[in-house]
Amino acid sequence: MNRAGSDVRGGEVVLRRGQFLRPQDIGLLCLIGKDSVKVYVKPKVGVLSVGSELVEPFSQSPTGLGRVVDVDRPMVRCLVERCGGDAQDWGIVGDEAELVAERLKEGMKGAHMAITTGGVSVGKSDITIEALKLLGAKILVHGVAIRPGSPVALSIYDGKPVVSLPGPPAACLIAFHLFARPIIRRLAGFRTEFLPCVRARLAARVPSRLGNRSHVRVRLYRKDGQFWAEPLQVTGSGILSTMTRSQGFVVVPEDREGLEAGEQVTVYLYTPHELVGGG
Amino acid sequence: MNRAGSDVRGGEVVLRRGQFLRPQDIGLLCLIGKDSVKVYVKPKVGVLSVGSELVEPFSQSPTGLGRVVDVDRPMVRCLVERCGGDAQDWGIVGDEAELVAERLKEGMKGAHMAITTGGVSVGKSDITIEALKLLGAKILVHGVAIRPGSPVALSIYDGKPVVSLPGPPAACLIAFHLFARPIIRRLAGFRTEFLPCVRARLAARVPSRLGNRSHVRVRLYRKDGQFWAEPLQVTGSGILSTMTRSQGFVVVPEDREGLEAGEQVTVYLYTPHELVGGG
Repeated sequence: MNRAGSDVRGGEVVLRRGQFLRPQDIGLLCLIGKDSVKVYVKPKVGVLSVGSELVEPFSQSPTGLGRVVDVDRPMVRCLVERCGGDAQDWGIVGDEAELVAERLKEGMKGAHMAITTGGVSVGKSDITIEALKLLGAKILVHGVAIRPGSPVALSIYDGKPVVSLPGPPAACLIAFHLFARPIIRRLAGFRTEFLPCVRARLAARVPSRLGNRSHVRVRLYRKDGQFWAEPLQVTGSGILSTMTRSQGFVVVPEDREGLEAGEQVTVYLYTPHELVGGG
Repeated sequence: MNRAGSDVRGGEVVLRRGQFLRPQDIGLLCLIGKDSVKVYVKPKVGVLSVGSELVEPFSQSPTGLGRVVDVDRPMVRCLVERCGGDAQDWGIVGDEAELVAERLKEGMKGAHMAITTGGVSVGKSDITIEALKLLGAKILVHGVAIRPGSPVALSIYDGKPVVSLPGPPAACLIAFHLFARPIIRRLAGFRTEFLPCVRARLAARVPSRLGNRSHVRVRLYRKDGQFWAEPLQVTGSGILSTMTRSQGFVVVPEDREGLEAGEQVTVYLYTPHELVGGG
Protein backbone atom coordinates (compact mmCIF):
# COMPACT_ATOMS: atom_id res chain seq x y z
CA MET A 1 0.00 0.00 0.00
CA ASN A 2 1.29 3.49 -0.75
CA ARG A 3 0.67 6.58 1.34
CA ALA A 4 -1.74 9.23 0.08
CA GLY A 5 0.20 11.75 -1.99
CA SER A 6 2.92 9.26 -2.93
CA ASP A 7 1.58 9.00 -6.48
CA VAL A 8 0.27 12.42 -7.50
CA ARG A 9 0.04 15.61 -5.45
CA GLY A 10 -2.68 18.25 -5.29
CA GLY A 11 -2.15 20.85 -8.02
CA GLU A 12 0.07 18.56 -10.11
CA VAL A 13 -0.62 18.42 -13.88
CA VAL A 14 -1.29 14.76 -14.65
CA LEU A 15 -2.43 14.96 -18.28
CA ARG A 16 -1.89 17.61 -20.93
CA ARG A 17 -4.10 18.96 -23.69
CA GLY A 18 -3.52 17.05 -26.92
CA GLN A 19 -2.26 13.94 -25.17
CA PHE A 20 -3.38 10.55 -26.48
CA LEU A 21 -5.23 8.71 -23.66
CA ARG A 22 -3.48 5.45 -22.86
CA PRO A 23 -4.74 2.75 -20.46
CA GLN A 24 -2.57 4.08 -17.62
CA ASP A 25 -3.89 7.61 -18.19
CA ILE A 26 -7.44 6.29 -17.85
CA GLY A 27 -6.29 4.50 -14.68
CA LEU A 28 -4.97 7.78 -13.30
CA LEU A 29 -8.29 9.52 -14.06
CA CYS A 30 -10.04 6.75 -12.08
CA LEU A 31 -7.55 7.16 -9.24
CA ILE A 32 -8.19 10.89 -8.89
CA GLY A 33 -11.95 10.49 -9.45
CA LYS A 34 -12.14 12.55 -12.64
CA ASP A 35 -15.01 10.98 -14.57
CA SER A 36 -15.01 13.24 -17.64
CA VAL A 37 -12.38 14.93 -19.79
CA LYS A 38 -12.68 17.01 -22.96
CA VAL A 39 -11.61 15.13 -26.07
CA TYR A 40 -11.26 16.14 -29.71
CA VAL A 41 -14.09 15.33 -32.10
CA LYS A 42 -13.02 13.05 -34.95
CA PRO A 43 -12.58 15.19 -38.06
CA LYS A 44 -15.06 14.30 -40.82
CA VAL A 45 -13.08 13.68 -43.99
CA GLY A 46 -14.85 13.32 -47.34
CA VAL A 47 -13.25 10.96 -49.87
CA LEU A 48 -14.03 11.50 -53.55
CA SER A 49 -12.74 9.64 -56.61
CA VAL A 50 -12.47 11.47 -59.92
CA GLY A 51 -12.31 9.64 -63.26
CA SER A 52 -14.69 8.46 -65.99
CA GLU A 53 -12.70 5.22 -66.23
CA LEU A 54 -13.48 4.19 -62.64
CA VAL A 55 -15.93 1.47 -61.61
CA GLU A 56 -17.03 0.54 -58.08
CA PRO A 57 -15.16 -2.43 -56.55
CA PHE A 58 -17.17 -5.67 -56.65
CA SER A 59 -19.71 -4.17 -59.04
CA GLN A 60 -20.93 -6.13 -62.02
CA SER A 61 -19.72 -3.44 -64.45
CA PRO A 62 -17.25 -4.74 -67.00
CA THR A 63 -13.59 -3.83 -66.44
CA GLY A 64 -10.76 -3.92 -68.96
CA LEU A 65 -10.61 -1.78 -72.13
CA GLY A 66 -10.12 1.52 -70.30
CA ARG A 67 -12.27 0.60 -67.28
CA VAL A 68 -10.45 0.49 -63.93
CA VAL A 69 -11.59 -0.66 -60.47
CA ASP A 70 -11.50 2.27 -58.03
CA VAL A 71 -9.17 0.88 -55.37
CA ASP A 72 -8.03 4.28 -54.09
CA ARG A 73 -11.25 5.18 -52.31
CA PRO A 74 -11.54 2.08 -50.08
CA MET A 75 -7.83 2.42 -49.25
CA VAL A 76 -8.05 6.12 -48.43
CA ARG A 77 -11.22 5.66 -46.35
CA CYS A 78 -9.44 2.98 -44.35
CA LEU A 79 -6.35 5.21 -43.92
CA VAL A 80 -8.49 8.14 -42.76
CA GLU A 81 -10.02 5.98 -40.01
CA ARG A 82 -6.60 4.72 -38.92
CA CYS A 83 -5.36 8.32 -38.60
CA GLY A 84 -8.21 9.16 -36.21
CA GLY A 85 -10.62 10.61 -38.76
CA ASP A 86 -14.22 9.79 -39.66
CA ALA A 87 -14.33 8.94 -43.38
CA GLN A 88 -17.31 9.97 -45.53
CA ASP A 89 -17.75 8.23 -48.86
CA TRP A 90 -18.48 10.76 -51.59
CA GLY A 91 -18.37 8.18 -54.37
CA ILE A 92 -17.04 8.48 -57.93
CA VAL A 93 -17.50 11.44 -60.27
CA GLY A 94 -16.56 11.26 -63.97
CA ASP A 95 -14.29 13.65 -65.87
CA GLU A 96 -16.55 16.70 -65.72
CA ALA A 97 -15.26 19.63 -63.69
CA GLU A 98 -18.75 21.03 -63.00
CA LEU A 99 -19.95 17.75 -61.51
CA VAL A 100 -16.78 17.38 -59.42
CA ALA A 101 -17.21 20.96 -58.15
CA GLU A 102 -20.85 20.31 -57.28
CA ARG A 103 -20.05 17.14 -55.31
CA LEU A 104 -17.22 18.87 -53.43
CA LYS A 105 -19.34 21.90 -52.59
CA GLU A 106 -22.22 19.76 -51.33
CA GLY A 107 -19.97 17.41 -49.34
CA MET A 108 -17.91 20.12 -47.69
CA LYS A 109 -21.01 21.48 -45.94
CA GLY A 110 -20.80 18.54 -43.54
CA ALA A 111 -17.06 17.87 -43.46
CA HIS A 112 -13.87 19.30 -41.98
CA MET A 113 -11.65 18.26 -44.88
CA ALA A 114 -11.75 16.61 -48.31
CA ILE A 115 -9.47 14.14 -50.03
CA THR A 116 -9.81 13.59 -53.78
CA THR A 117 -8.04 10.93 -55.82
CA GLY A 118 -7.35 11.24 -59.54
CA GLY A 119 -7.73 14.09 -61.99
CA VAL A 120 -4.60 15.96 -60.96
CA SER A 121 -2.11 15.03 -63.69
CA VAL A 122 -0.98 18.17 -65.48
CA GLY A 123 -2.57 18.36 -68.93
CA LYS A 124 -5.80 16.92 -70.24
CA SER A 125 -6.85 14.97 -67.11
CA ASP A 126 -6.59 17.96 -64.80
CA ILE A 127 -10.33 17.86 -63.94
CA THR A 128 -9.97 18.03 -60.15
CA ILE A 129 -7.85 21.18 -60.31
CA GLU A 130 -10.31 22.68 -62.78
CA ALA A 131 -13.17 21.92 -60.36
CA LEU A 132 -11.33 23.51 -57.43
CA LYS A 133 -10.76 26.63 -59.54
CA LEU A 134 -14.47 26.73 -60.44
CA LEU A 135 -15.24 26.72 -56.71
CA GLY A 136 -12.81 29.57 -56.10
CA ALA A 137 -10.65 27.35 -53.88
CA LYS A 138 -7.18 28.67 -53.11
CA ILE A 139 -4.71 26.26 -54.69
CA LEU A 140 -1.58 26.39 -52.55
CA VAL A 141 0.44 23.68 -54.27
CA HIS A 142 0.08 21.67 -57.45
CA GLY A 143 3.02 19.46 -58.25
CA VAL A 144 5.85 18.51 -55.89
CA ALA A 145 9.30 17.14 -56.80
CA ILE A 146 8.68 13.71 -55.28
CA ARG A 147 8.41 10.21 -56.68
CA PRO A 148 5.90 8.72 -56.74
CA GLY A 149 3.07 11.20 -56.14
CA SER A 150 4.39 14.32 -57.93
CA PRO A 151 0.98 15.63 -59.18
CA VAL A 152 -0.41 16.05 -55.62
CA ALA A 153 -2.28 19.31 -54.96
CA LEU A 154 -3.13 21.12 -51.71
CA SER A 155 -5.95 23.67 -51.57
CA ILE A 156 -8.16 25.57 -49.18
CA TYR A 157 -11.88 25.68 -49.89
CA ASP A 158 -14.38 27.25 -47.50
CA GLY A 159 -11.54 27.59 -44.96
CA LYS A 160 -10.99 23.82 -45.00
CA PRO A 161 -8.11 21.74 -46.38
CA VAL A 162 -8.49 19.77 -49.62
CA VAL A 163 -5.78 17.24 -50.45
CA SER A 164 -5.85 16.03 -54.05
CA LEU A 165 -3.99 12.76 -54.42
CA PRO A 166 -2.86 11.25 -57.74
CA GLY A 167 -4.86 8.27 -59.04
CA PRO A 168 -2.22 5.56 -59.47
CA PRO A 169 -2.55 3.49 -56.26
CA ALA A 170 1.08 3.50 -55.05
CA ALA A 171 1.40 7.25 -55.73
CA CYS A 172 -1.93 7.80 -53.97
CA LEU A 173 -0.79 5.95 -50.84
CA ILE A 174 2.65 7.55 -50.60
CA ALA A 175 1.19 11.03 -51.13
CA PHE A 176 -1.47 10.27 -48.51
CA HIS A 177 1.19 9.42 -45.92
CA LEU A 178 3.19 12.56 -46.72
CA PHE A 179 0.41 15.15 -47.08
CA ALA A 180 -3.02 13.94 -45.87
CA ARG A 181 -2.02 12.05 -42.71
CA PRO A 182 -0.36 15.01 -40.93
CA ILE A 183 -3.41 17.21 -41.57
CA ILE A 184 -5.92 14.62 -40.34
CA ARG A 185 -3.86 13.92 -37.22
CA ARG A 186 -3.56 17.62 -36.49
CA LEU A 187 -7.34 18.05 -36.89
CA ALA A 188 -7.85 15.02 -34.62
CA GLY A 189 -5.85 16.77 -31.90
CA PHE A 190 -2.60 14.79 -32.09
CA ARG A 191 0.36 17.01 -31.43
CA THR A 192 2.85 14.80 -33.24
CA GLU A 193 2.41 13.64 -36.78
CA PHE A 194 5.35 11.47 -37.58
CA LEU A 195 5.20 7.97 -38.94
CA PRO A 196 6.57 5.16 -36.81
CA CYS A 197 10.02 4.21 -38.05
CA VAL A 198 12.88 1.79 -37.59
CA ARG A 199 16.52 1.90 -38.59
CA ALA A 200 17.59 -0.78 -41.06
CA ARG A 201 20.45 -1.68 -43.38
CA LEU A 202 19.72 -1.42 -47.09
CA ALA A 203 19.99 -4.85 -48.75
CA ALA A 204 20.63 -3.53 -52.28
CA ARG A 205 21.46 -0.34 -54.13
CA VAL A 206 18.52 1.89 -55.11
CA PRO A 207 18.76 4.30 -58.03
CA SER A 208 16.94 7.65 -58.01
CA ARG A 209 16.80 10.80 -60.08
CA LEU A 210 18.68 13.86 -58.85
CA GLY A 211 16.32 16.72 -57.98
CA ASN A 212 13.46 14.40 -56.95
CA ARG A 213 12.85 13.09 -53.45
CA SER A 214 12.16 9.37 -53.96
CA HIS A 215 10.11 7.12 -51.72
CA VAL A 216 11.32 3.59 -52.19
CA ARG A 217 9.07 0.81 -50.91
CA VAL A 218 11.01 -1.79 -48.93
CA ARG A 219 10.39 -5.25 -47.55
CA LEU A 220 11.75 -5.54 -43.99
CA TYR A 221 13.31 -8.66 -42.58
CA ARG A 222 15.54 -9.53 -39.64
CA LYS A 223 18.97 -11.10 -40.01
CA ASP A 224 21.95 -11.14 -37.64
CA GLY A 225 20.01 -9.23 -34.98
CA GLN A 226 19.14 -6.24 -37.14
CA PHE A 227 16.57 -5.09 -39.67
CA TRP A 228 17.32 -5.25 -43.40
CA ALA A 229 15.37 -3.31 -46.00
CA GLU A 230 15.02 -4.89 -49.44
CA PRO A 231 14.04 -2.27 -52.02
CA LEU A 232 11.13 -3.20 -54.29
CA GLN A 233 10.57 -1.79 -57.77
CA VAL A 234 11.10 1.99 -57.70
CA THR A 235 9.07 2.88 -60.76
CA GLY A 236 5.46 2.05 -61.61
CA SER A 237 3.26 4.31 -59.47
CA GLY A 238 0.25 2.20 -60.48
CA ILE A 239 1.72 -1.01 -59.13
CA LEU A 240 -0.24 -1.66 -55.94
CA SER A 241 1.65 -4.84 -55.10
CA THR A 242 4.81 -2.87 -54.27
CA MET A 243 2.70 -1.53 -51.40
CA THR A 244 1.24 -4.87 -50.34
CA ARG A 245 4.63 -6.59 -50.43
CA SER A 246 6.38 -3.82 -48.48
CA GLN A 247 6.16 -2.69 -44.85
CA GLY A 248 7.26 0.87 -45.37
CA PHE A 249 9.43 3.22 -47.41
CA VAL A 250 12.89 4.76 -47.43
CA VAL A 251 13.43 8.37 -48.50
CA VAL A 252 16.18 9.14 -51.01
CA PRO A 253 16.97 12.86 -50.64
CA GLU A 254 16.72 15.05 -53.74
CA ASP A 255 20.44 15.85 -53.61
CA ARG A 256 21.52 12.22 -53.93
CA GLU A 257 21.55 9.87 -56.89
CA GLY A 258 20.38 6.74 -55.14
CA LEU A 259 21.49 4.98 -51.97
CA GLU A 260 24.20 2.35 -51.64
CA ALA A 261 23.74 -1.26 -50.52
CA GLY A 262 24.67 -1.59 -46.86
CA GLU A 263 23.75 1.98 -45.90
CA GLN A 264 21.92 2.54 -42.61
CA VAL A 265 18.53 4.01 -43.48
CA THR A 266 15.33 5.05 -41.69
CA VAL A 267 12.33 3.00 -42.77
CA TYR A 268 8.98 4.78 -42.29
CA LEU A 269 6.37 2.16 -41.48
CA TYR A 270 2.83 2.21 -42.94
CA THR A 271 1.45 0.89 -39.63
CA PRO A 272 3.00 -0.03 -36.29
CA HIS A 273 1.93 -3.63 -36.97
CA GLU A 274 4.65 -3.92 -39.61
CA LEU A 275 7.37 -4.71 -37.09
CA VAL A 276 8.38 -8.34 -37.23
CA GLY A 277 10.52 -8.38 -34.11
CA GLY A 278 11.16 -6.58 -30.87
CA GLY A 279 14.90 -6.02 -31.10
CA MET B 1 -2.30 2.73 -67.21
CA ASN B 2 -0.67 -0.64 -66.54
CA ARG B 3 -1.17 -3.77 -68.63
CA ALA B 4 -3.24 -6.64 -67.18
CA GLY B 5 -0.91 -8.94 -65.24
CA SER B 6 1.63 -6.21 -64.51
CA ASP B 7 0.53 -6.04 -60.87
CA VAL B 8 -0.39 -9.56 -59.78
CA ARG B 9 -0.47 -12.76 -61.80
CA GLY B 10 -2.94 -15.63 -61.79
CA GLY B 11 -2.00 -18.16 -59.11
CA GLU B 12 0.11 -15.67 -57.16
CA VAL B 13 -0.34 -15.60 -53.37
CA VAL B 14 -1.28 -11.99 -52.53
CA LEU B 15 -2.17 -12.29 -48.83
CA ARG B 16 -1.25 -14.88 -46.23
CA ARG B 17 -3.14 -16.43 -43.35
CA GLY B 18 -2.55 -14.47 -40.13
CA GLN B 19 -1.67 -11.26 -41.95
CA PHE B 20 -2.99 -7.98 -40.58
CA LEU B 21 -5.14 -6.30 -43.27
CA ARG B 22 -3.74 -2.88 -44.17
CA PRO B 23 -5.38 -0.31 -46.47
CA GLN B 24 -3.29 -1.45 -49.45
CA ASP B 25 -4.26 -5.09 -48.80
CA ILE B 26 -7.92 -4.08 -48.90
CA GLY B 27 -7.14 -2.22 -52.14
CA LEU B 28 -5.65 -5.36 -53.62
CA LEU B 29 -8.73 -7.38 -52.65
CA CYS B 30 -10.85 -4.78 -54.49
CA LEU B 31 -8.53 -4.98 -57.50
CA ILE B 32 -8.85 -8.75 -57.83
CA GLY B 33 -12.59 -8.68 -57.02
CA LYS B 34 -12.39 -10.74 -53.83
CA ASP B 35 -15.26 -9.43 -51.72
CA SER B 36 -14.87 -11.66 -48.65
CA VAL B 37 -11.97 -13.12 -46.69
CA LYS B 38 -11.90 -15.21 -43.50
CA VAL B 39 -10.81 -13.23 -40.45
CA TYR B 40 -10.18 -14.22 -36.84
CA VAL B 41 -12.91 -13.66 -34.27
CA LYS B 42 -11.90 -11.29 -31.48
CA PRO B 43 -11.08 -13.37 -28.40
CA LYS B 44 -13.43 -12.70 -25.48
CA VAL B 45 -11.31 -11.88 -22.44
CA GLY B 46 -12.88 -11.67 -18.97
CA VAL B 47 -11.33 -9.16 -16.56
CA LEU B 48 -11.82 -9.76 -12.82
CA SER B 49 -10.50 -7.77 -9.87
CA VAL B 50 -9.85 -9.55 -6.57
CA GLY B 51 -9.63 -7.71 -3.24
CA SER B 52 -11.93 -6.72 -0.38
CA GLU B 53 -10.23 -3.32 -0.23
CA LEU B 54 -11.34 -2.38 -3.78
CA VAL B 55 -14.06 0.11 -4.65
CA GLU B 56 -15.47 0.94 -8.09
CA PRO B 57 -13.99 4.04 -9.75
CA PHE B 58 -16.25 7.11 -9.51
CA SER B 59 -18.48 5.38 -6.94
CA GLN B 60 -19.66 7.28 -3.87
CA SER B 61 -18.08 4.68 -1.55
CA PRO B 62 -15.55 6.20 0.84
CA THR B 63 -11.89 5.61 0.03
CA GLY B 64 -8.92 5.94 2.35
CA LEU B 65 -8.34 3.85 5.49
CA GLY B 66 -7.72 0.60 3.64
CA ARG B 67 -10.13 1.31 0.76
CA VAL B 68 -8.55 1.57 -2.69
CA VAL B 69 -10.01 2.61 -6.07
CA ASP B 70 -9.84 -0.31 -8.53
CA VAL B 71 -7.82 1.27 -11.32
CA ASP B 72 -6.46 -2.04 -12.66
CA ARG B 73 -9.71 -3.21 -14.24
CA PRO B 74 -10.40 -0.15 -16.45
CA MET B 75 -6.74 -0.17 -17.53
CA VAL B 76 -6.70 -3.88 -18.32
CA ARG B 77 -10.03 -3.71 -20.19
CA CYS B 78 -8.61 -0.91 -22.30
CA LEU B 79 -5.38 -2.85 -22.95
CA VAL B 80 -7.32 -5.96 -23.96
CA GLU B 81 -9.21 -3.97 -26.60
CA ARG B 82 -5.99 -2.41 -27.92
CA CYS B 83 -4.47 -5.88 -28.32
CA GLY B 84 -7.39 -6.98 -30.51
CA GLY B 85 -9.49 -8.64 -27.79
CA ASP B 86 -13.08 -8.13 -26.69
CA ALA B 87 -13.02 -7.28 -22.96
CA GLN B 88 -15.73 -8.55 -20.63
CA ASP B 89 -16.11 -6.84 -17.26
CA TRP B 90 -16.43 -9.43 -14.51
CA GLY B 91 -16.37 -6.82 -11.72
CA ILE B 92 -14.78 -6.99 -8.26
CA VAL B 93 -14.84 -9.97 -5.90
CA GLY B 94 -13.67 -9.68 -2.26
CA ASP B 95 -11.08 -11.86 -0.53
CA GLU B 96 -13.06 -15.10 -0.53
CA ALA B 97 -11.66 -17.92 -2.63
CA GLU B 98 -15.05 -19.63 -3.08
CA LEU B 99 -16.63 -16.46 -4.50
CA VAL B 100 -13.66 -15.83 -6.81
CA ALA B 101 -13.85 -19.43 -8.04
CA GLU B 102 -17.58 -19.12 -8.68
CA ARG B 103 -17.19 -15.88 -10.69
CA LEU B 104 -14.35 -17.37 -12.75
CA LYS B 105 -16.25 -20.59 -13.43
CA GLU B 106 -19.37 -18.72 -14.51
CA GLY B 107 -17.48 -16.18 -16.63
CA MET B 108 -15.30 -18.70 -18.43
CA LYS B 109 -18.37 -20.35 -19.97
CA GLY B 110 -18.59 -17.40 -22.38
CA ALA B 111 -14.93 -16.42 -22.71
CA HIS B 112 -11.73 -17.55 -24.39
CA MET B 113 -9.41 -16.32 -21.65
CA ALA B 114 -9.44 -14.66 -18.22
CA ILE B 115 -7.29 -12.00 -16.64
CA THR B 116 -7.42 -11.46 -12.89
CA THR B 117 -5.76 -8.66 -10.96
CA GLY B 118 -4.81 -8.89 -7.30
CA GLY B 119 -4.78 -11.76 -4.82
CA VAL B 120 -1.56 -13.33 -6.07
CA SER B 121 1.02 -12.16 -3.53
CA VAL B 122 2.56 -15.20 -1.84
CA GLY B 123 1.24 -15.49 1.72
CA LYS B 124 -1.99 -14.35 3.27
CA SER B 125 -3.46 -12.51 0.23
CA ASP B 126 -3.12 -15.49 -2.10
CA ILE B 127 -6.89 -15.71 -2.71
CA THR B 128 -6.78 -15.86 -6.53
CA ILE B 129 -4.38 -18.81 -6.51
CA GLU B 130 -6.52 -20.53 -3.88
CA ALA B 131 -9.60 -20.02 -6.10
CA LEU B 132 -7.82 -21.46 -9.14
CA LYS B 133 -6.83 -24.51 -7.08
CA LEU B 134 -10.46 -24.94 -5.94
CA LEU B 135 -11.48 -25.01 -9.61
CA GLY B 136 -8.85 -27.63 -10.38
CA ALA B 137 -7.02 -25.24 -12.74
CA LYS B 138 -3.51 -26.25 -13.73
CA ILE B 139 -1.17 -23.63 -12.32
CA LEU B 140 1.81 -23.48 -14.67
CA VAL B 141 3.69 -20.59 -13.10
CA HIS B 142 3.36 -18.61 -9.89
CA GLY B 143 6.16 -16.15 -9.29
CA VAL B 144 8.73 -14.95 -11.83
CA ALA B 145 12.10 -13.27 -11.15
CA ILE B 146 11.07 -9.92 -12.62
CA ARG B 147 10.58 -6.45 -11.18
CA PRO B 148 7.95 -5.21 -10.98
CA GLY B 149 5.33 -7.93 -11.39
CA SER B 150 7.03 -10.91 -9.69
CA PRO B 151 3.84 -12.51 -8.22
CA VAL B 152 2.26 -13.06 -11.68
CA ALA B 153 0.63 -16.49 -12.22
CA LEU B 154 -0.26 -18.36 -15.40
CA SER B 155 -2.84 -21.17 -15.35
CA ILE B 156 -5.03 -23.27 -17.59
CA TYR B 157 -8.68 -23.70 -16.65
CA ASP B 158 -11.18 -25.50 -18.87
CA GLY B 159 -8.50 -25.61 -21.58
CA LYS B 160 -8.27 -21.78 -21.57
CA PRO B 161 -5.50 -19.46 -20.38
CA VAL B 162 -5.83 -17.52 -17.14
CA VAL B 163 -3.31 -14.75 -16.48
CA SER B 164 -3.25 -13.53 -12.87
CA LEU B 165 -1.66 -10.11 -12.62
CA PRO B 166 -0.45 -8.49 -9.39
CA GLY B 167 -2.62 -5.71 -7.95
CA PRO B 168 -0.21 -2.76 -7.70
CA PRO B 169 -0.93 -0.75 -10.88
CA ALA B 170 2.59 -0.45 -12.32
CA ALA B 171 3.28 -4.14 -11.66
CA CYS B 172 -0.09 -5.01 -13.21
CA LEU B 173 0.67 -3.06 -16.40
CA ILE B 174 4.21 -4.37 -16.88
CA ALA B 175 3.10 -7.97 -16.25
CA PHE B 176 0.22 -7.44 -18.70
CA HIS B 177 2.61 -6.37 -21.47
CA LEU B 178 4.93 -9.31 -20.80
CA PHE B 179 2.42 -12.13 -20.26
CA ALA B 180 -1.16 -11.25 -21.23
CA ARG B 181 -0.54 -9.29 -24.43
CA PRO B 182 1.25 -12.09 -26.33
CA ILE B 183 -1.55 -14.55 -25.49
CA ILE B 184 -4.36 -12.20 -26.55
CA ARG B 185 -2.57 -11.34 -29.79
CA ARG B 186 -1.99 -15.00 -30.56
CA LEU B 187 -5.68 -15.78 -29.91
CA ALA B 188 -6.59 -12.81 -32.14
CA GLY B 189 -4.61 -14.36 -34.99
CA PHE B 190 -1.55 -12.12 -35.01
CA ARG B 191 1.56 -14.08 -35.87
CA THR B 192 3.95 -11.64 -34.23
CA GLU B 193 3.64 -10.48 -30.67
CA PHE B 194 6.42 -8.06 -30.08
CA LEU B 195 6.02 -4.59 -28.70
CA PRO B 196 6.98 -1.66 -30.90
CA CYS B 197 10.40 -0.42 -29.90
CA VAL B 198 13.02 2.23 -30.55
CA ARG B 199 16.72 2.46 -29.80
CA ALA B 200 17.69 5.22 -27.39
CA ARG B 201 20.61 6.39 -25.27
CA LEU B 202 20.17 6.08 -21.51
CA ALA B 203 20.24 9.52 -19.88
CA ALA B 204 21.20 8.29 -16.41
CA ARG B 205 22.46 5.17 -14.63
CA VAL B 206 19.78 2.71 -13.46
CA PRO B 207 20.44 0.35 -10.58
CA SER B 208 18.93 -3.15 -10.47
CA ARG B 209 19.20 -6.30 -8.39
CA LEU B 210 21.28 -9.19 -9.74
CA GLY B 211 19.09 -12.23 -10.45
CA ASN B 212 16.01 -10.17 -11.29
CA ARG B 213 15.04 -8.94 -14.73
CA SER B 214 14.06 -5.31 -14.17
CA HIS B 215 11.67 -3.24 -16.27
CA VAL B 216 12.60 0.38 -15.88
CA ARG B 217 10.03 2.94 -16.98
CA VAL B 218 11.58 5.67 -19.10
CA ARG B 219 10.58 9.05 -20.44
CA LEU B 220 11.67 9.46 -24.08
CA TYR B 221 12.84 12.71 -25.58
CA ARG B 222 14.80 13.75 -28.66
CA LYS B 223 18.07 15.64 -28.53
CA ASP B 224 20.88 15.91 -31.08
CA GLY B 225 18.95 13.83 -33.61
CA GLN B 226 18.49 10.79 -31.39
CA PHE B 227 16.21 9.43 -28.71
CA TRP B 228 17.19 9.67 -25.05
CA ALA B 229 15.59 7.57 -22.31
CA GLU B 230 15.35 9.13 -18.86
CA PRO B 231 14.76 6.45 -16.22
CA LEU B 232 11.94 7.13 -13.77
CA GLN B 233 11.74 5.69 -10.26
CA VAL B 234 12.60 1.98 -10.38
CA THR B 235 10.88 0.89 -7.16
CA GLY B 236 7.26 1.39 -6.08
CA SER B 237 5.14 -1.06 -8.04
CA GLY B 238 2.01 0.79 -6.85
CA ILE B 239 3.10 4.11 -8.30
CA LEU B 240 0.88 4.59 -11.35
CA SER B 241 2.43 7.92 -12.30
CA THR B 242 5.70 6.21 -13.35
CA MET B 243 3.51 4.69 -16.09
CA THR B 244 1.69 7.88 -17.03
CA ARG B 245 4.92 9.90 -17.15
CA SER B 246 6.77 7.28 -19.23
CA GLN B 247 6.41 6.14 -22.84
CA GLY B 248 7.87 2.67 -22.40
CA PHE B 249 10.36 0.55 -20.51
CA VAL B 250 13.93 -0.68 -20.74
CA VAL B 251 14.85 -4.22 -19.71
CA VAL B 252 17.84 -4.73 -17.39
CA PRO B 253 18.92 -8.36 -17.82
CA GLU B 254 19.08 -10.55 -14.71
CA ASP B 255 22.85 -11.04 -15.08
CA ARG B 256 23.60 -7.32 -14.85
CA GLU B 257 23.63 -4.96 -11.90
CA GLY B 258 22.07 -1.95 -13.56
CA LEU B 259 22.83 -0.12 -16.79
CA GLU B 260 25.24 2.75 -17.29
CA ALA B 261 24.40 6.29 -18.37
CA GLY B 262 25.04 6.69 -22.11
CA GLU B 263 24.40 3.04 -22.98
CA GLN B 264 22.39 2.30 -26.16
CA VAL B 265 19.21 0.55 -25.06
CA THR B 266 16.01 -0.77 -26.63
CA VAL B 267 12.92 1.00 -25.35
CA TYR B 268 9.72 -1.06 -25.59
CA LEU B 269 6.82 1.31 -26.21
CA TYR B 270 3.41 0.95 -24.54
CA THR B 271 1.72 2.11 -27.75
CA PRO B 272 2.96 3.16 -31.19
CA HIS B 273 1.63 6.67 -30.41
CA GLU B 274 4.48 7.21 -27.94
CA LEU B 275 6.95 8.22 -30.63
CA VAL B 276 7.63 11.93 -30.57
CA GLY B 277 9.58 12.14 -33.79
CA GLY B 278 10.22 10.36 -37.03
CA GLY B 279 14.02 10.24 -37.09
